[in-house]
Amino acid sequence: MTQSDLQELKRLIHQLSDLGAAEALMSWDQETQMPPEAARVRGLQMASLAGLSHQMFTSARLGELLSNAAAETDQDAALLRVVRRDHGKATRLPIEFVEERSRAENEAHHAWVAARQNNDFASFAPYLEKMFELARRYADYQGYDDHPYDALLDDYEPGMKTAHVKAIFADLRDRTLPLLRRIAAAPDATDYSVLTRSFPAEAQRSFAAQVAQDAFGLLPAFSRLDVSAHPFQTNFSRDDLRITTRFDEHYFPMSLFGTWHESGHAMYEHGVSAALERTPLSRGASLGVHESQSRMFENLLGRSRPFWQRYFPAFAQAAPTVAQGQDAESLYRAVNRVRPDLIRVEADEVTYNFHIMLRFELELALLEGSLKVADLPEAWNARMQEFLGVTPPNDAEGVLQDIHWSAGLVGYFPTYTLGNLLSVQLLDAARQDAEIAAEVERAEYGKLRAWLVQNVHQYGRSRTPAEITEAATGKPLSADAYVAYLYAKYEDIYGLK
Amino acid sequence: MTQSDLQELKRLIHQLSDLGAAEALMSWDQETQMPPEAARVRGLQMASLAGLSHQMFTSARLGELLSNAAAETDQDAALLRVVRRDHGKATRLPIEFVEERSRAENEAHHAWVAARQNNDFASFAPYLEKMFELARRYADYQGYDDHPYDALLDDYEPGMKTAHVKAIFADLRDRTLPLLRRIAAAPDATDYSVLTRSFPAEAQRSFAAQVAQDAFGLLPAFSRLDVSAHPFQTNFSRDDLRITTRFDEHYFPMSLFGTWHESGHAMYEHGVSAALERTPLSRGASLGVHESQSRMFENLLGRSRPFWQRYFPAFAQAAPTVAQGQDAESLYRAVNRVRPDLIRVEADEVTYNFHIMLRFELELALLEGSLKVADLPEAWNARMQEFLGVTPPNDAEGVLQDIHWSAGLVGYFPTYTLGNLLSVQLLDAARQDAEIAAEVERAEYGKLRAWLVQNVHQYGRSRTPAEITEAATGKPLSADAYVAYLYAKYEDIYGLK
Repeated sequence: MTQSDLQELKRLIHQLSDLGAAEALMSWDQETQMPPEAARVRGLQMASLAGLSHQMFTSARLGELLSNAAAETDQDAALLRVVRRDHGKATRLPIEFVEERSRAENEAHHAWVAARQNNDFASFAPYLEKMFELARRYADYQGYDDHPYDALLDDYEPGMKTAHVKAIFADLRDRTLPLLRRIAAAPDATDYSVLTRSFPAEAQRSFAAQVAQDAFGLLPAFSRLDVSAHPFQTNFSRDDLRITTRFDEHYFPMSLFGTWHESGHAMYEHGVSAALERTPLSRGASLGVHESQSRMFENLLGRSRPFWQRYFPAFAQAAPTVAQGQDAESLYRAVNRVRPDLIRVEADEVTYNFHIMLRFELELALLEGSLKVADLPEAWNARMQEFLGVTPPNDAEGVLQDIHWSAGLVGYFPTYTLGNLLSVQLLDAARQDAEIAAEVERAEYGKLRAWLVQNVHQYGRSRTPAEITEAATGKPLSADAYVAYLYAKYEDIYGLK
Repeated sequence: MTQSDLQELKRLIHQLSDLGAAEALMSWDQETQMPPEAARVRGLQMASLAGLSHQMFTSARLGELLSNAAAETDQDAALLRVVRRDHGKATRLPIEFVEERSRAENEAHHAWVAARQNNDFASFAPYLEKMFELARRYADYQGYDDHPYDALLDDYEPGMKTAHVKAIFADLRDRTLPLLRRIAAAPDATDYSVLTRSFPAEAQRSFAAQVAQDAFGLLPAFSRLDVSAHPFQTNFSRDDLRITTRFDEHYFPMSLFGTWHESGHAMYEHGVSAALERTPLSRGASLGVHESQSRMFENLLGRSRPFWQRYFPAFAQAAPTVAQGQDAESLYRAVNRVRPDLIRVEADEVTYNFHIMLRFELELALLEGSLKVADLPEAWNARMQEFLGVTPPNDAEGVLQDIHWSAGLVGYFPTYTLGNLLSVQLLDAARQDAEIAAEVERAEYGKLRAWLVQNVHQYGRSRTPAEITEAATGKPLSADAYVAYLYAKYEDIYGLK
């Protein structure tokens, strides 16, 4: 490979990255700014640019340049490794399969929306069967050693294996269930009605954004907060971060913790080294590592006692009606309520992972064929009863609640729990530094954020999740830290010590 | 050419159109939404996508498909005609010239910003010389019959010739100057202080947007109004129109007439036939025809007596401080003040075109070499004195006031006046229909807008400006209608009849 070949390869990689940024901007605009009647043509435009990206990425010329390329620096080596990996995945799929899947996902999404609305699982079942059939075929195209689920999981959590997830989840379940049983049996005098008191949207927005800025470093100089139906984070460079939230005047935790959650995702992207800019390395290493950052801000810090001690006065000023008769401790307890319930996205730190373990087990069974789609609602409800002691009154609040499967996202759910586990493992490692620990006890996070940039963010996708985890925490990912965190926090709150 | 060749050509044309939409969105976002620190990478991304567009548009494959293509429908024939025309212009330029021009424009823009700030023409002069040298070379690459300016003008006003502009402008000048002299000598009892009374930005925005909706049909279902430093209209499809404005609490005409001006541009794009969607035909026919639509809403309608009679009550409600002691007639007179002054963008309907004629004459002289850049300020000031009887106190308020030349836009200015002339010629033609005339007298514009869609908008770029003008008005473009309009309106306002 000549010098000019490497330059041509990098130019193509930059063009693809820039095209990706444009597609992401179109998507952000669609969710936050676009006038409604623009939707039809915008859909055509986005599909067309996705096609152009795919065409450029799978072109013979790019393949040739990739084959011949030889890295001269570590950074180039990482770039080639990741682009080859992505390129391999893209080129192993026949174009007919990509088109069939795209059509099927579109149909399944519409079927899911209608089925959830009408609480009619049977109408969605054929589409769901198709999604799992496509997932199996996808795994066959990509290849795998142990389990077809490995090929799916790898797209979201590179290098993670199904067997490892199974082992971690079993351990987590066995050690968390006893705690959950004890919490459920404990007396609870906390007044949760405070969570539903009136807190006007504009004041919620202002408080959430101010804390995101002061505590978590998300400055308006390189970010925006907008409103969308479903909150998300996206970005078009490390200095162009866009997060969204939504407001319920009578349930402020949604916008507050949602904003801080998305701030965690955004600050991860902000911390990726500028040297990786406009390449596919300039993103988080995996969904799990990403979730570790969002959950850290949302839960480990945003739902901590020192945080509420520090921010209660500002909160009281922003929401005098809510704060009436409350103090930092009562707010801290209210926002940490543990309650086994039906809906994943509203679940607390103790019960959340059971929602994930349930989905993971069902995905495996569906993929292996040991469970039929027709029997899925029954299997769902049985596990809900087993894990959380509740049974959905209908499928809309049960098996139909998530969008993921209708969008073809099989193998995605485990990353939520892997992120939860990693969040505590990372925070524990950071707190080995006494100065960081002291700051966190005062709800100051400047040194912690610097540690995260140094040990996690800067690498982007140039290191694998396992490499990052082991270098930053000194051990592979496990449930240990998270379980210890849950016991310490909730035995205290529920007076179980 | 086979059927599949035509399909491939159309697919490429759609991809290029969609890429153009993405670039336009990046630009809109940059001006209205983007956090400031994102600017550097956004600049790289936009340059990169512009390069990709150019590369795709000038590819050998597209050229081959275009050469072989044979149209089967009138619409395909128009598409091929316009794409071949654009393709010819793009491929006649050596890539080295495109790159040299791009660099020089970038440097000239920075030099202009500094020169205007420091009122230092001499520092800008070498860059301006380069811009005119590049314009001459551009004309040579494109070729021309009569005058190199023809090649420049054609980019903004396809088919228009320099000789034609000269003749129209001479006629306009000779017939307008006497009116201007009489106005300047007339007594004027209007109280213009009303224009600078306080009108809070949010109330200006609300009133401007409501009128844009009610009077001009710019509905939120397919449009947005945002704030930017320099107002503009852009769009990503006919149902995705974005206009911007800016606010001065002590000079409401800026935002009001600015919003209605951009509404005119937007409604033109909205009226282009959906059959032309995602092709280069799906835009206005020329800058002049575009300006005829913006000027019609801004001036012919927005500054008309029936308009202020109809909207004065709503105005008074939105701006009680401004309306205090005023009525429809006094507002009508205030917003139609004629005053020879230095700055083009603030000029009224009578003096505006003199600013354009001056620039047109200077562009020709610079291009021909009969005027040296070093002598430009003197030539500028002399003509200002000759036409408008005012002399700029400095170059910042004189020859340095416009961004155009620093951006390489030579041949662009005449389209502003061509648009003014066409606006009246079109409105006169529409008012031949008695129902339209009656509606316009009541400041109702539904039938007028339908006429504009039918006679102007729907064709997009599939007809030339001359074809549209002659079919819609029965005659070629001239100064006749505009001159008659000025005399009727301003003899009345200034009591000169």
